[in-house]
Amino acid sequence: MQKKISSLQNSAVKRLLQLQEKSRNRRKEGVFLVEGIRETRLAIKGGFSLEEIYFCPPLFSSEEITSLTGNALLPSEITEISSEVYNKIAYRGSTEGIIAVFRSKHLTLESLKISSEKPLILVAEAPEKPGNIGALLRTADAAGVDAVLIANPRTDLYNPNIIRSSVGCIFTNTIATGSTAEIIEFLQRQNINIYAAALQSSKSYAEVDFIKSTAIVVGTEATGLSEEWLKNSTQNILIPMHGEIDSMNVSVAAGILIFEAKRQRGFRY
Amino acid sequence: MQKKISSLQNSAVKRLLQLQEKSRNRRKEGVFLVEGIRETRLAIKGGFSLEEIYFCPPLFSSEEITSLTGNALLPSEITEISSEVYNKIAYRGSTEGIIAVFRSKHLTLESLKISSEKPLILVAEAPEKPGNIGALLRTADAAGVDAVLIANPRTDLYNPNIIRSSVGCIFTNTIATGSTAEIIEFLQRQNINIYAAALQSSKSYAEVDFIKSTAIVVGTEATGLSEEWLKNSTQNILIPMHGEIDSMNVSVAAGILIFEAKRQRGFRY
Repeated sequence: MQKKISSLQNSAVKRLLQLQEKSRNRRKEGVFLVEGIRETRLAIKGGFSLEEIYFCPPLFSSEEITSLTGNALLPSEITEISSEVYNKIAYRGSTEGIIAVFRSKHLTLESLKISSEKPLILVAEAPEKPGNIGALLRTADAAGVDAVLIANPRTDLYNPNIIRSSVGCIFTNTIATGSTAEIIEFLQRQNINIYAAALQSSKSYAEVDFIKSTAIVVGTEATGLSEEWLKNSTQNILIPMHGEIDSMNVSVAAGILIFEAKRQRGFRY
Repeated sequence: MQKKISSLQNSAVKRLLQLQEKSRNRRKEGVFLVEGIRETRLAIKGGFSLEEIYFCPPLFSSEEITSLTGNALLPSEITEISSEVYNKIAYRGSTEGIIAVFRSKHLTLESLKISSEKPLILVAEAPEKPGNIGALLRTADAAGVDAVLIANPRTDLYNPNIIRSSVGCIFTNTIATGSTAEIIEFLQRQNINIYAAALQSSKSYAEVDFIKSTAIVVGTEATGLSEEWLKNSTQNILIPMHGEIDSMNVSVAAGILIFEAKRQRGFRY
């Protein structure tokens, strides 16, 4: 039987708000929220398990749910909500009238399968700003990299700001997280060359052969990469700069490095 | 005689707040605010005319003003402010105790001097988000481009969000603004090749000779470049993408294009 919620006092409203706002609640329940038709479709396509739908007529109708989700949900997992409830939960005023609850994936290195013979991997250590993480994931999607690895993550990737700023690329990329030590071990075990972006390096990225198995590793804007990466890399690389300030945005720097690899590979793999 | 303000009701406080918040007030007075020691130093170095200083002891002392500004100011242009006043004016809680008022520059094409024989220029049409404009200016500084041209500007470049997100690169770059038509005419008159980034283009940026005089032109993420650019370009170029979404951040795309030009030029000019 399909449910209906029109009161802001309903405990389900409080739960959804907390899933929106608190990573602790997302972790505890193992789920996260997705807003909008396109994002919901991308999450389904990305293999995320859909658990519940909240829809607000007339913005979204119960017929549209079937066309969006097939028969993935039981009627009891579909809830109609009033405009008042929708406006309370919807993040930054999205207007499509649909909020979906998906089960989080365990983004572990163990479950990561890389099929390419000469993989191209983007690694970001401890990225913090959701806008930068979103831009990194967009670049990774556009480049069709084999995986994005987040070392020492400081942010829950299912944060609504990251989902939004990635414009759905959080669902299209193959992502895994782990400690810096674990990721270094993983890359070394697979014989993937580690190229660590470092201001103090002497080798220009343009002189590196990225056709070989490649992991490009970027750190934070504030502190760069940790010593662990710099010591364990195949080669530390830098982007030659000629300005007065020489402070590039981390997602711009990653884009330059990843697309130099793509260029060397003839944009083929 | 050096002044002192400790009341939030003082009309000078209201004026500074409005200069911080309203581009209309900045334009009317022809001045803008800069916070922090590093930023103030960069603005002076960038040739901006310093008009007033507001400082808050003990965060900043009147002796430090002389070491920062030399003798650029009369005592009457230096005002001590209380912590309460400083906290009210300081944008997003900066803590260095200094706010400077600088005269805006007229960023016209007529006053633009390009001395390089084979210039490399970045053009952005109608960029909107301060974060993206800041990242573009950081990339331009790092690449040492000859000029950054903003076509059909939609935002006042002396907006505090842009100053902040550019980490001072608003002062280190040579910047001019103009309509799209004016900038196209300017580039054509100087025989500078126009390379317009366009998704519908068939030529990869990696196949273009950027050693020649080059203007790389990027549009907005939402609508791309206007027809005027696409019709008047030497060549429309695209970044080959292989993802599911293919939506790159505009400052990342600009970084990839600008640094491909730098790479071709051997990072020399």
